[in-house]
Amino acid sequence: MAVVVTRIERTAADIAKRAAALGVATIHEAQGRRGLMAAHLRPIYRPALIAGPAVTCEVAPGDNWMIHVAVEQCRPGDILVVTPTSPCDDGYFGDLLATSLQAAGVVGLVIDAGVRDIASLTEMRFPVWSKTVCAQGTVKETLGNVNTPIVCAGTPVAPGDLVVADDDGVVVVRRAEAGAVLDKADARRANEEDKRKRFEAGELGLDIYGFRPRLAAKGLRYIESLDEL
Amino acid sequence: MAVVVTRIERTAADIAKRAAALGVATIHEAQGRRGLMAAHLRPIYRPALIAGPAVTCEVAPGDNWMIHVAVEQCRPGDILVVTPTSPCDDGYFGDLLATSLQAAGVVGLVIDAGVRDIASLTEMRFPVWSKTVCAQGTVKETLGNVNTPIVCAGTPVAPGDLVVADDDGVVVVRRAEAGAVLDKADARRANEEDKRKRFEAGELGLDIYGFRPRLAAKGLRYIESLDEL
Amino acid sequence: MAVVVTRIERTAADIAKRAAALGVATIHEAQGRRGLMAAHLRPIYRPALIAGPAVTCEVAPGDNWMIHVAVEQCRPGDILVVTPTSPCDDGYFGDLLATSLQAAGVVGLVIDAGVRDIASLTEMRFPVWSKTVCAQGTVKETLGNVNTPIVCAGTPVAPGDLVVADDDGVVVVRRAEAGAVLDKADARRANEEDKRKRFEAGELGLDIYGFRPRLAAKGLRYIESLDEL
Amino acid sequence: MAVVVTRIERTAADIAKRAAALGVATIHEAQGRRGLMAAHLRPIYRPALIAGPAVTCEVAPGDNWMIHVAVEQCRPGDILVVTPTSPCDDGYFGDLLATSLQAAGVVGLVIDAGVRDIASLTEMRFPVWSKTVCAQGTVKETLGNVNTPIVCAGTPVAPGDLVVADDDGVVVVRRAEAGAVLDKADARRANEEDKRKRFEAGELGLDIYGFRPRLAAKGLRYIESLDEL
Amino acid sequence: MAVVVTRIERTAADIAKRAAALGVATIHEAQGRRGLMAAHLRPIYRPALIAGPAVTCEVAPGDNWMIHVAVEQCRPGDILVVTPTSPCDDGYFGDLLATSLQAAGVVGLVIDAGVRDIASLTEMRFPVWSKTVCAQGTVKETLGNVNTPIVCAGTPVAPGDLVVADDDGVVVVRRAEAGAVLDKADARRANEEDKRKRFEAGELGLDIYGFRPRLAAKGLRYIESLDEL
Amino acid sequence: MAVVVTRIERTAADIAKRAAALGVATIHEAQGRRGLMAAHLRPIYRPALIAGPAVTCEVAPGDNWMIHVAVEQCRPGDILVVTPTSPCDDGYFGDLLATSLQAAGVVGLVIDAGVRDIASLTEMRFPVWSKTVCAQGTVKETLGNVNTPIVCAGTPVAPGDLVVADDDGVVVVRRAEAGAVLDKADARRANEEDKRKRFEAGELGLDIYGFRPRLAAKGLRYIESLDEL
Repeated sequence: MAVVVTRIERTAADIAKRAAALGVATIHEAQGRRGLMAAHLRPIYRPALIAGPAVTCEVAPGDNWMIHVAVEQCRPGDILVVTPTSPCDDGYFGDLLATSLQAAGVVGLVIDAGVRDIASLTEMRFPVWSKTVCAQGTVKETLGNVNTPIVCAGTPVAPGDLVVADDDGVVVVRRAEAGAVLDKADARRANEEDKRKRFEAGELGLDIYGFRPRLAAKGLRYIESLDEL
Repeated sequence: MAVVVTRIERTAADIAKRAAALGVATIHEAQGRRGLMAAHLRPIYRPALIAGPAVTCEVAPGDNWMIHVAVEQCRPGDILVVTPTSPCDDGYFGDLLATSLQAAGVVGLVIDAGVRDIASLTEMRFPVWSKTVCAQGTVKETLGNVNTPIVCAGTPVAPGDLVVADDDGVVVVRRAEAGAVLDKADARRANEEDKRKRFEAGELGLDIYGFRPRLAAKGLRYIESLDEL
Repeated sequence: MAVVVTRIERTAADIAKRAAALGVATIHEAQGRRGLMAAHLRPIYRPALIAGPAVTCEVAPGDNWMIHVAVEQCRPGDILVVTPTSPCDDGYFGDLLATSLQAAGVVGLVIDAGVRDIASLTEMRFPVWSKTVCAQGTVKETLGNVNTPIVCAGTPVAPGDLVVADDDGVVVVRRAEAGAVLDKADARRANEEDKRKRFEAGELGLDIYGFRPRLAAKGLRYIESLDEL
Repeated sequence: MAVVVTRIERTAADIAKRAAALGVATIHEAQGRRGLMAAHLRPIYRPALIAGPAVTCEVAPGDNWMIHVAVEQCRPGDILVVTPTSPCDDGYFGDLLATSLQAAGVVGLVIDAGVRDIASLTEMRFPVWSKTVCAQGTVKETLGNVNTPIVCAGTPVAPGDLVVADDDGVVVVRRAEAGAVLDKADARRANEEDKRKRFEAGELGLDIYGFRPRLAAKGLRYIESLDEL
Repeated sequence: MAVVVTRIERTAADIAKRAAALGVATIHEAQGRRGLMAAHLRPIYRPALIAGPAVTCEVAPGDNWMIHVAVEQCRPGDILVVTPTSPCDDGYFGDLLATSLQAAGVVGLVIDAGVRDIASLTEMRFPVWSKTVCAQGTVKETLGNVNTPIVCAGTPVAPGDLVVADDDGVVVVRRAEAGAVLDKADARRANEEDKRKRFEAGELGLDIYGFRPRLAAKGLRYIESLDEL
Repeated sequence: MAVVVTRIERTAADIAKRAAALGVATIHEAQGRRGLMAAHLRPIYRPALIAGPAVTCEVAPGDNWMIHVAVEQCRPGDILVVTPTSPCDDGYFGDLLATSLQAAGVVGLVIDAGVRDIASLTEMRFPVWSKTVCAQGTVKETLGNVNTPIVCAGTPVAPGDLVVADDDGVVVVRRAEAGAVLDKADARRANEEDKRKRFEAGELGLDIYGFRPRLAAKGLRYIESLDEL
């Protein structure tokens, strides 16, 4: 299979905007701790924070040809999500491709492989979450897919799904569930703000969350010294 | 065993203050190159530098319940040191717990696992040394221990021991030895300052340390070209 | 063998200056994607960019004695390149050695091992590319070599070879080939600048590079939906 | 979500039998190089070779409770496929659970985590593909899912999908496609047998596959010595 | 510090014998899941199973001098436990040292570093648990300690402590607790044998352990299809 | 560059035969601890032991085309040594290529990448030292080199160099030095046999090597208990 799917349904821009205000950890919690990409994906500069619909791209190891194909499918606000068909640390992406994506209005790149030209990318403020940094270039010989469902860093991504990336990592929310998940995330955020005030005032989580009885029931012992054991 | 030890002897605040001025590498050398945690513990932002007595906390994999228990045992100036009972990269700690620790006067966290909310932690200037960054949350189901002796990142830590952490990593000094170690570290620092001036003036380590005779005795040869071999 | 070669031919200073303006990725491409050190070598601070002739140094695991020997062989503009004879993450290098190298006019260090005192090194603006950061000190017991051909992070380096290091990593160019490689790199850079303008204007790589016919010939299909398959 | 799906459609037993005769590499090729689990999954003893429909199981880190739930859903010929919700190397599985699975007719286990009691498992001839071996036990506190679609070692697995595992690793074939994939794999196998005879007779791949013209067209040069360059 | 402690209290031989019959996983469970060395320690051949009191040895990276010193402190039935002061994969140990240890009656080696000559060691039936296999030799320049308390692969070991190693890994039991731990392990083993029979007869863990009510209380749902959600 | 060098000078067959009798560790020592490939290269079955002249092959990541080209350059007794131009774990090599190499009289493969069909390779007794095992196939699109000097697993290899591989790993000896190195290795082996007899008789390395005076001079202390410190 080597196809480019040219019509995809995208998560709406207002949803993406809300998501960017909430961040990865909160959204991940709100959707039941699903959809988190593996922790080896790290931003090339910090702080960085983006949200938008995914354009997916599957590439061969050491071959970035399909990224050029994918650029044409991108729309303003999109996030390009790239995964190799087998693990590869080569530098698939540099400042020229970033220039092209930026010209297309793409807000960032998520790639389970290497990137290069990171000094330029940082200066351009084009955020990238990658597995590594590597100057090794790639070839343009083998086809792959654009806008098919993929697994990136252990997590399924369908074209148009909501992707949120910040200093903590990258989370994916299915397009159809994005609205409901953000509603839960908003509620969670509000609850957290309330909790934060209480923590700032010196209240303990033990009391805020009412942990003491269950800790006791499980058998936690408070002692003054290990000699008491 | 699942205990919280409520009375511990802490390294004194003035000792901690002296330690913070000396840094990890110097103190590690001064105590005979002992007590260094594994190099995979890295600060979430740089530069960062803290020193203080350890409150220890042992947690189950994927379970941060005991961190909430540990907060109550912390006093101003303390450093919370957390180790899982088996390796885990989940995000045990985020901005709410950091708010709670900061309210308690805790100066930083050392954890052989993952953390999240690092953009907020950076903004709050709450320094953390961790194994990784990961948005994956944890549960609250399994008991552990607070203020018992632990091994964190390969190094034994007793409650109240002096912990020093900076951009180079984390070192532990036994409470009873902290004064003597810092005395040696002061001497070492003074000696280094003297050396630094000589290095700045262009003197060579070969001469400052008198290495030449022993190098010659071991058989080091100076040649103009490999053809001489 | 334990030798110090005292006479080496260095890549010329003007070549090094040109190289620094071009950067690692461009030079690596220009010399046919050869000479790149492994991606685990990372700068201790960013951005950082240096170029200069290599002084090579081979050390025993956990033993930095030969670095002191190597300092004497360094000249202004040099880059010290250090490799252990077996993998080691110890902190071979800190601020005193950096002071010594800086006094000798050395522009940076590349080491396939650990370094320490990175807060000081950052403040001194002495750039280092290393495998890791580790406060663990080393001994001075075992001889090694200075200015012999080595393999560092998977790449052969001869004394005097051109070394270029930036945020993307480290590349080595053989001294005899450096001029020709930089000529190619200049041409590549010029070509890239032209391409960059076209990308900025919204042209696609598919068109700039003329990829469409070959993609079609290989069988790439454009479809509106996966249902068409 | 914490559900057990009690009715699943399984890949047929005759399909599984055919698959076991073909092996992982051939089937992986036959389905277009899709569905391979990450190479870190290794068999605890060799040789080992199984094929059967997947019963899927998602577990919390350090918690094997749901494996006990999954056993009840297994039928003779099944393969149990277990993935943690975040990376964990603990020993989720040992000889008692293997005894239970063997009693249920399960032919093997695939788990992206640790296992223990491997001497007993080897003696019982109960094959396991795991990420690691670790004696660390797990708790029974947190719910997960049985027979929901999962991602295991980077590869999506739906309940009832065909799983094939041998010394080379583990591959997954979607149930609906299994018959067609095996037909292709049979053809591939036949073709390979023909090729093998020719290779045994000393024919070269260059000739068998007709590579010479394309190699020449790409510019491959045959020279007697590098001096000719 | 560089000392050899010549008088140590050893776990008794009959305790060691009982431990060997129980194995690592059972003993680890019996002592509350403490004392397990990190899972990267693997046996060089399988199956292998030993138990005995520890003679501890701390070595410099790339330096096996102290192992020669340690041999003299070994008695029949001992297990030599070696840890480097910083991580090192060199081959510290080969067939000559194994011959020497075997002559002294030592039953095996546990080392958080590399070993070599593993074909000979396998033929000699001298079992070794190591971090890796590596032919790289070591020097004899730097002192270390014999029979002091160490941390090996993340676990504290005191001289004379009971060490048990099998295909699952390595566990340490404090000498003073060994008898009590083995009593618990015997009980656990007996209980397991009873359980094994029930599992063999097809009973489920869900029933044997009575899990069903708590699973239901936590909210586990049984459904026939995901469409029910 | 994409060349095949068709005339190479090979290490003589009698040298290879002698080398196979000596093994990796002894030869590595005899040549001054040089030429060892990184320890991540492991044999697919054990025991295994080969020696012969290298035919070198450089391949693109995920592309095994040049291995087919290399087969034609192999002669009876050769060892094929393959390195990718950037790190790759794909399965470059399987039973058909092994059949082809075996037909050509090649004695084994060393590859710093993945291999597959290892059950068949084991049955065929075709030994392979690889970085990993992986069923993922490769493409045939990009040229590389045959019989040019390469770096494989961190070690330079020239065509015709002597390669020795056994359970401990892989070592390379330059063709011109092979005779002299084997002479030293023979002497070392003889010396070791003498030592082995003394070790078997219970003599200690401390005495055989005369370590005691230097240990004392360095300050090693023998004490009965740590309380003496």
